[in-house]
Amino acid sequence: MAIDSKREHQEIAQNEKRTMKEHIHPVFDRMISRPEREQRLNQRSKVLWFTGLSGSGKSTIAIGLEKKLFESGYFCQILDGDNIRSGINNNLGFTHEDRIENIRRIAEVSKLYIHSGIIAICSFISPTIAIRKMAKEIIGEEDFLEVFVNTPLALCEKRDVKGLYKKARAGEIKNFTGIDAPYEPPIDPQIEIHTENKTIQACVDQAYDAIIENIQI
Amino acid sequence: MAIDSKREHQEIAQNEKRTMKEHIHPVFDRMISRPEREQRLNQRSKVLWFTGLSGSGKSTIAIGLEKKLFESGYFCQILDGDNIRSGINNNLGFTHEDRIENIRRIAEVSKLYIHSGIIAICSFISPTIAIRKMAKEIIGEEDFLEVFVNTPLALCEKRDVKGLYKKARAGEIKNFTGIDAPYEPPIDPQIEIHTENKTIQACVDQAYDAIIENIQI
Repeated sequence: MAIDSKREHQEIAQNEKRTMKEHIHPVFDRMISRPEREQRLNQRSKVLWFTGLSGSGKSTIAIGLEKKLFESGYFCQILDGDNIRSGINNNLGFTHEDRIENIRRIAEVSKLYIHSGIIAICSFISPTIAIRKMAKEIIGEEDFLEVFVNTPLALCEKRDVKGLYKKARAGEIKNFTGIDAPYEPPIDPQIEIHTENKTIQACVDQAYDAIIENIQI
Repeated sequence: MAIDSKREHQEIAQNEKRTMKEHIHPVFDRMISRPEREQRLNQRSKVLWFTGLSGSGKSTIAIGLEKKLFESGYFCQILDGDNIRSGINNNLGFTHEDRIENIRRIAEVSKLYIHSGIIAICSFISPTIAIRKMAKEIIGEEDFLEVFVNTPLALCEKRDVKGLYKKARAGEIKNFTGIDAPYEPPIDPQIEIHTENKTIQACVDQAYDAIIENIQI
């Protein structure tokens, strides 16, 4: 295949800097920028990173939030296990290294999205402080909003909509977060949503109210 | 880390099917769909896959096309070496396997974009029929438009804006497409742009005119 090597790209970058000055038609020299895209979509793009236990309600709230934002004129994309594990990360397993690579790629895709001007809503258990720190560093601190969906383990386990806690308790699933693998809550999340005794709509509204000023132009 | 395993996702999928019927508030059951997004952006999303030799003009035409589409009200995103190799694919080298994985991930990211309703403009040498076939299969035949930027090798080498052909001829770069690695032209591309003796604008206009009916709603 082709020589699209790092060396080439460094040279491209250098060349583009030269071209920017020397080119007669600078119109062709650069892609549409993030601010131009944000202006077009009338929003500021951010990554909303939902973390919480399995069954805590992350994806349910994310889906409700996306809907509310979309109806309010914002343009978002949810990234979750369904569209990531079946696509770009379909060659990753569940070793420690693969789990890190899973989150790394998700963070990189989110970064592409925000540079496209689009709000990315990521919904992943992402159980450790270290792994969320990695995501935050890739995305950039100013663009990373951590949303902690705080539901007591006992309630997640009681809901057990997927039947996974039962299997984890029976030893049929190993390294299950909250059972035999740790969940480290965020220390200082942008938003913390306690879902117990709340309707889905109330949780969605809380998230919306908390993030809206971050995405308004 | 968490148990977001394939098994879990199969169960999620099954569960969602159940929930769609049983849920009292189906409003929370699904993400915003591709058609809803396309409607919002007033376009149909496609992947425009630019292929051609190094120095053929792929990225120059892609950037001009993005600009023209953006000014005409369309919303696109260019994916090229600059934003892919430095981000999601920054852990890939240039072995045969890594080059395939490079294109696979690009195709998967493009697929995410078109499901977001956005037109993806991919600019990669992607020199073999097999590797473009893989991209097309991932993206889906109906969403994959192949754009062959056809510039004679002699002209690419004469331009040699990056100085890479000179290095390849000197043996300083190995496996350089067109020199000591093959380039297999598309057999039946959606668009073929002959850049020789044409202005950049004429090439951009040709691409625009050829794809516009594919993206109009």
